[in-house]
Amino acid sequence: MTVTATSFTGVGVSPGVGAGPVRAMAAAPPEPPPGERHDGDATAALAAASSALETVGADLDARSERAAQKGRAEASEVLAAQAMMARDPSLSELAAAKIGEGLSPARAVFEAFGTFRDLLASAGAYLAGRVADLDDIRDRVIAVLSGRPMPGVPDADVPFVLVARDLAPADTALIDPAKVAAFVTAEGGPTSHTAILARTMGVPAVVAAPAALDLPDGTPVLVDGTTGEVTVEPSEEAVRTARQAGDALAAAVSGARGPGATADGKLVPLLANIGGPADVESALAHGAEGVGLFRTEFLFLDAATAPTLEAQQAVYREVLSAFGDKRVVVRTLDAGADKPLAFLPAGDEPNPALGERALRMMRHHPDMLDTQLRALAAASSGLPVDLWVMAPMVADGDDAGFFMDAARAAGLTGKAGVMIEIPAAALRARDFAQAVDFFSIGTNDLAQYAFAADRQIGALSRFQDPWQPAMLDLIASAATAANTAGTSCGVCGEAAADPALACVLVGLGVTSLSMSAPALPLVRAVLAAHTYSQCVRAAEAARRATSASGAREMARAALPGLRAVGM
Amino acid sequence: MTVTATSFTGVGVSPGVGAGPVRAMAAAPPEPPPGERHDGDATAALAAASSALETVGADLDARSERAAQKGRAEASEVLAAQAMMARDPSLSELAAAKIGEGLSPARAVFEAFGTFRDLLASAGAYLAGRVADLDDIRDRVIAVLSGRPMPGVPDADVPFVLVARDLAPADTALIDPAKVAAFVTAEGGPTSHTAILARTMGVPAVVAAPAALDLPDGTPVLVDGTTGEVTVEPSEEAVRTARQAGDALAAAVSGARGPGATADGKLVPLLANIGGPADVESALAHGAEGVGLFRTEFLFLDAATAPTLEAQQAVYREVLSAFGDKRVVVRTLDAGADKPLAFLPAGDEPNPALGERALRMMRHHPDMLDTQLRALAAASSGLPVDLWVMAPMVADGDDAGFFMDAARAAGLTGKAGVMIEIPAAALRARDFAQAVDFFSIGTNDLAQYAFAADRQIGALSRFQDPWQPAMLDLIASAATAANTAGTSCGVCGEAAADPALACVLVGLGVTSLSMSAPALPLVRAVLAAHTYSQCVRAAEAARRATSASGAREMARAALPGLRAVGM
Repeated sequence: MTVTATSFTGVGVSPGVGAGPVRAMAAAPPEPPPGERHDGDATAALAAASSALETVGADLDARSERAAQKGRAEASEVLAAQAMMARDPSLSELAAAKIGEGLSPARAVFEAFGTFRDLLASAGAYLAGRVADLDDIRDRVIAVLSGRPMPGVPDADVPFVLVARDLAPADTALIDPAKVAAFVTAEGGPTSHTAILARTMGVPAVVAAPAALDLPDGTPVLVDGTTGEVTVEPSEEAVRTARQAGDALAAAVSGARGPGATADGKLVPLLANIGGPADVESALAHGAEGVGLFRTEFLFLDAATAPTLEAQQAVYREVLSAFGDKRVVVRTLDAGADKPLAFLPAGDEPNPALGERALRMMRHHPDMLDTQLRALAAASSGLPVDLWVMAPMVADGDDAGFFMDAARAAGLTGKAGVMIEIPAAALRARDFAQAVDFFSIGTNDLAQYAFAADRQIGALSRFQDPWQPAMLDLIASAATAANTAGTSCGVCGEAAADPALACVLVGLGVTSLSMSAPALPLVRAVLAAHTYSQCVRAAEAARRATSASGAREMARAALPGLRAVGM
Repeated sequence: MTVTATSFTGVGVSPGVGAGPVRAMAAAPPEPPPGERHDGDATAALAAASSALETVGADLDARSERAAQKGRAEASEVLAAQAMMARDPSLSELAAAKIGEGLSPARAVFEAFGTFRDLLASAGAYLAGRVADLDDIRDRVIAVLSGRPMPGVPDADVPFVLVARDLAPADTALIDPAKVAAFVTAEGGPTSHTAILARTMGVPAVVAAPAALDLPDGTPVLVDGTTGEVTVEPSEEAVRTARQAGDALAAAVSGARGPGATADGKLVPLLANIGGPADVESALAHGAEGVGLFRTEFLFLDAATAPTLEAQQAVYREVLSAFGDKRVVVRTLDAGADKPLAFLPAGDEPNPALGERALRMMRHHPDMLDTQLRALAAASSGLPVDLWVMAPMVADGDDAGFFMDAARAAGLTGKAGVMIEIPAAALRARDFAQAVDFFSIGTNDLAQYAFAADRQIGALSRFQDPWQPAMLDLIASAATAANTAGTSCGVCGEAAADPALACVLVGLGVTSLSMSAPALPLVRAVLAAHTYSQCVRAAEAARRATSASGAREMARAALPGLRAVGM
């Protein structure tokens, strides 16, 4: 196939400009045909299978070590676990048995992995991530056996534009930001793994651009992660102009200092989303004025039993003591749905995202919530930190009242509030705004429910766009309710990391923004380039639109500071 | 346990008053202990198991025949299928093998059913209903083997109040309305099977009343399916007063004739929800002014291949020709989620209700939608019927535009419109009201998404209450958008069957109401007892409330005609 257009547009999900030759991720090898047999030499077939498994195991070990050397402890662990899976003796025994039945090494390996896969899949939703890891190992072993390129991120000496159908965590664990000029994927949305990874790495990215798959390797492209435009074989002039704009942006970002505020001095605290102590350093390095979302699931998800009060207290204290007298907003356990607990398995729910997750689960297990809240109270004791706690998945005043009572009963004296991530809660926030100390809007789940569209389904990713006017209406409803009640209303979804949208959110009445730490400097710079009344006008303009793209355009037109900083 | 209170309150889901002695549904027998062994006589154990299976098979056959004699063809079929399952030779072979391993007959039967259950469960969500059927047969066989009462609906000579944890379709297939004075269940919500069944049968019902399980068999109770109150050991005076009110209601219902309208003559067409030609007779008998929701899934769900245009046309014509020049609103295929297609299996969606269901599926298979629309056009050709078509699960103007184009391309000349059952679509209905000919609000799914609470999970049933103020806001948003655009906006969810809520819906701007046919006379009577401005004031009062119960109370206080008809 050839690309006749000289440019195409996807969804820009990580701002900035990158240029370089296309390198496509090698696709997974096709399934070896059912019944494919070896040539009669079972010993040779066995040796080939063992050797391929060992090659992949050694490669994964080497990648694990390189990740460890770069300080990527988590990536290193994932890769080491994959290497162990490749070397699992029962896996090679299964493959050997199938070779004994006459199957080719590739087909035998494929079927052996299939048996493992079924075992994992039957163990429930929790292991879904492991299934993807297993498929990745299988594809690598089959690639080795069939002489195909190893699937995954390509190697290259010059910075390149990585093109893929979509990126999985396993693909990206070893990506070197210095070698990748931009990401372009055919699938995915603003909250896909690719988008979050790109923003975390500070690499420009465009998703939902299927035309990219037709680009031959080596084609020079210019990628604008702000507008979503991908220019094929750009002129030198186009690249230079884009780079100049990028430099202007970099200058603006490095010039923006101090607390988050509009040009006319309305303070908007810019906070970081963190998932545990490992994220504290990055938050502080990017100038976070505190934490707007401290996810506590990491303490629970892989645990065989519920963590004790003491174990929780120690981890919370490590985080809370790092932030001086700054605000740290802790979200209580948000388990269930795609984050099931090993020690508290959910019932067999046909739609876990619509099930008894998060606070609903805690209403059945109030002791577990109480332990977490008491651990937080104990952890903050004697520290200057401004500790706030909030509950996920609050639907109405009844849920809010349950959580406020629990927080007070546990001896917490700081602010207690609720996440607004259910459409009805956003619409009727005024009914319980007086009963809580603050709101925090989770835009990702809010979009999922408002549009009845699963965040995990790529084909529905257009409904995850936080610029959709219905989303702006729901955010405005919650923010107005908080303002009327004299309380505060933050946003802690990925929406806050979009600089133009950040201005619109402030214009809708949102009082703080929390995001992945690397997004903070750019948001700070863009916010400082606009007055509060410009933000209000941009919000009004966006709400007059009838589509996400219309809202984005209307808002950009009302935010002249975007051009001033080169966006 | 004893009940000390003289009354308790659940959620009234089917209006009217019933009194009689309590008869509890016998509970399912407990699981035979794992490893429970027979006494060494394998031949006797085998004979006991075979005899129990045959006893249950014969009982189910007899019930199937009785159902057929009463003209309940569907119930008869379900029961006959269950009888066949009980007599399935592979089931008894499995049980025999386990008895051969030494297990007791009850345990062997339990495990044999377990194997079948796993097979069914692994076949996907479609068979979930069959799993419940299978569990029912298993419980019956184990009850026979262990000398316990057969689970299910009790027999009695006098009308009784049936008390149960919840009612499943299999439990209720043979219930004789003349023998049941009322239903009271511990679980369930306004859209549970119990509620729908009770309204269909015209039997008063209260759900979500766990205290009922503590009532000893034979306790006299008075059940008010309008207020949800259950009075224990009521005085004769209380029963008499309640019955007089019931008589007043019956008189009002039988006195209400002609087209649906408020007391001051504002016409509100009262339509029936139907699932196929079998429901036409009941719709006409209850005075439906047409059909507000013709579900077409029955043509597709059990089919091995997509039904042809000709096959569809014949069935559509049978329905359309029954309604003269009346309105018939046909919903195009609403497959996926809990209604998967055998010939078009969905992907492995983690949350099917948030997945590519209904119109989203048709956007991938436009030929299938086109065939259905052309079959409808052909079926209506030459008939006087006022055919309307509508698409389920429309999220925004893009979805609406796709469907309107498809309807026009298929040659449909009547009205084409969209279901409003996604919160964002209700909120932003004004953005595409001009682009369609009508809206129809599906309150059941709308509540499911607005509160992020699965309709199928009993513990979340409070979120299915259509009186929740957020629901009233969303309905008002869609109705106002339709009124402004000069189009119409119906409601076809179960909400329309609640007479007080029906008045509120009219007050919110809803222009037609569609419901289970047996609910039509009561809604007609209550609507005729109120002026339009009373409906508007009731709607305003309900929206000022901050909870479902508050909204219900505020509306009732503003609807004096409810008392006049004895409610």
